[in-house]
Amino acid sequence: MTKLAVVGPGLLGGSIALAARRTGNFTIRAWARRPEAVEELRAGSFAELASSNLEEIVHDADLVVLCVPIGAMPTLAREMAPFLRPDTLVTDVGSVKGPVVKEIAPIFDGHCRFIGSHPMAGSEQTGLVAARAELFDGAVCILTPDECCTSEDIERARAFWMVLGCQVKTTSPSLHDEYVAAVSHFPHLLASVLINAVEDQLPDAFEYCGPGFRDTTRVASGPTKMWAEILHANAGAVKKSAEAMIEKLREAITLLDFASAGSETQMNEFLTKAKARRDAIAPAPKPQAANTAKDATNL
Amino acid sequence: MTKLAVVGPGLLGGSIALAARRTGNFTIRAWARRPEAVEELRAGSFAELASSNLEEIVHDADLVVLCVPIGAMPTLAREMAPFLRPDTLVTDVGSVKGPVVKEIAPIFDGHCRFIGSHPMAGSEQTGLVAARAELFDGAVCILTPDECCTSEDIERARAFWMVLGCQVKTTSPSLHDEYVAAVSHFPHLLASVLINAVEDQLPDAFEYCGPGFRDTTRVASGPTKMWAEILHANAGAVKKSAEAMIEKLREAITLLDFASAGSETQMNEFLTKAKARRDAIAPAPKPQAANTAKDATNL
Repeated sequence: MTKLAVVGPGLLGGSIALAARRTGNFTIRAWARRPEAVEELRAGSFAELASSNLEEIVHDADLVVLCVPIGAMPTLAREMAPFLRPDTLVTDVGSVKGPVVKEIAPIFDGHCRFIGSHPMAGSEQTGLVAARAELFDGAVCILTPDECCTSEDIERARAFWMVLGCQVKTTSPSLHDEYVAAVSHFPHLLASVLINAVEDQLPDAFEYCGPGFRDTTRVASGPTKMWAEILHANAGAVKKSAEAMIEKLREAITLLDFASAGSETQMNEFLTKAKARRDAIAPAPKPQAANTAKDATNL
Repeated sequence: MTKLAVVGPGLLGGSIALAARRTGNFTIRAWARRPEAVEELRAGSFAELASSNLEEIVHDADLVVLCVPIGAMPTLAREMAPFLRPDTLVTDVGSVKGPVVKEIAPIFDGHCRFIGSHPMAGSEQTGLVAARAELFDGAVCILTPDECCTSEDIERARAFWMVLGCQVKTTSPSLHDEYVAAVSHFPHLLASVLINAVEDQLPDAFEYCGPGFRDTTRVASGPTKMWAEILHANAGAVKKSAEAMIEKLREAITLLDFASAGSETQMNEFLTKAKARRDAIAPAPKPQAANTAKDATNL
């Protein structure tokens, strides 16, 4: 049995505990700072042991997953580092990796192993109440090893996310931040911008929403403080995506002129290019056949 | 029993037939131009009678619903007008109303009653194969009477869409087009623009898509020719929405500067405003308690 410590009782932390429990290959301990959150962890049977005593939770763990907002990670890392074994593997679920890895990795250096992770799963819902064992089924999880990571660190982290149901990819912290700005951080901001633009321009229009608008803007219901923090931490790459978007919007506006007979055809070509791309990424990938005792060994 | 004629065998036409059948209050006839589509209508038991003979389908109907692309409506309207009774109510499902109503209404004038409708239901999927009786449950349907419509026309159309499960709203054709540009037509274009911007800027990023990006861009998988036609027909209002979006994106970019200590707070406020708005429109409205024999009388 792998001794897993989940640090932070939100949607991701709770779902990791449930997904790990589903495999039958882990003993699970869970940490929360607030007593009410500890109670919630206990009431929901997320772990064999839930506590606000960090040492009690991470002591002797094989694997520790940091599931707190990125701004809270350095402090927690400093608090837990002395209690870890040299071969404990620590990872996290932060949505921004460049600045996080740069700050966290040196804190753990000499205490344990560390590798950054970013499971691309989530919801506009938050908290333990939204946690579910299936959250990671088929989701992409990006590992972002830095130059201090060994291939063993990478393989242990890969095996962990795979048994939870993820498809695992590996890239550098800085490339991660560019990719994720393009397909997650900026699109999140874009959904909020769209809503605020309609609100300013034509607020009565909200009465006429169909399922398309609901889906297009769903992510804007996500936790705002967490997202402001993410956008702050990855501002440079998000800004690049925003500028590319404005340029492409200007191109689309020229297609809306429909001046010549061929304009509708050009618009159709523009939409067809996007449709081909979109069709190629949908539907969500199927869960992998994992979760067996064999897969879970040697995490 | 109300004699319903559904003209056009796509997602909407098929779903209207299935939703009407569910109420038990209609005899349903369905028209398609292509023999294979007629066969498909027959095979799926969408109607008591399916045919490519327009007269056979619309003759003596109480209610005719035009479910073809807006570009095909004028020709069909001319073809069917001579076969209609003066008290037959014709409506449609087109996504653009200003130019459509202006062109269609005079064709029917003197032959039957006409009122524009736009059920805000649909899918990125198309065709009879995607049709389902529940498509309209809780969906908004916008009626767009012009100055020739009587209150009886409006009430008959309202009763029809209500028994199909819709929430019915009424506005003018031109206001409809502005509202729908803001929450449907432009957001559709925006999803395509986002995909094409990522494709140009950082195509490898598509490998890292999570559920957020999938939802944000879902509509871009819709039928491109139909959408190019819609964007063409409502280009003026869509362009206004696009310009408002660029302006709001510029505002968001200044928030990304995070120059001062208060910037993250300002970004949080921007996201919070959008979240409040988004939370107010979700979830999709519940189906109404309708579909009784009483509701369906005198359509």
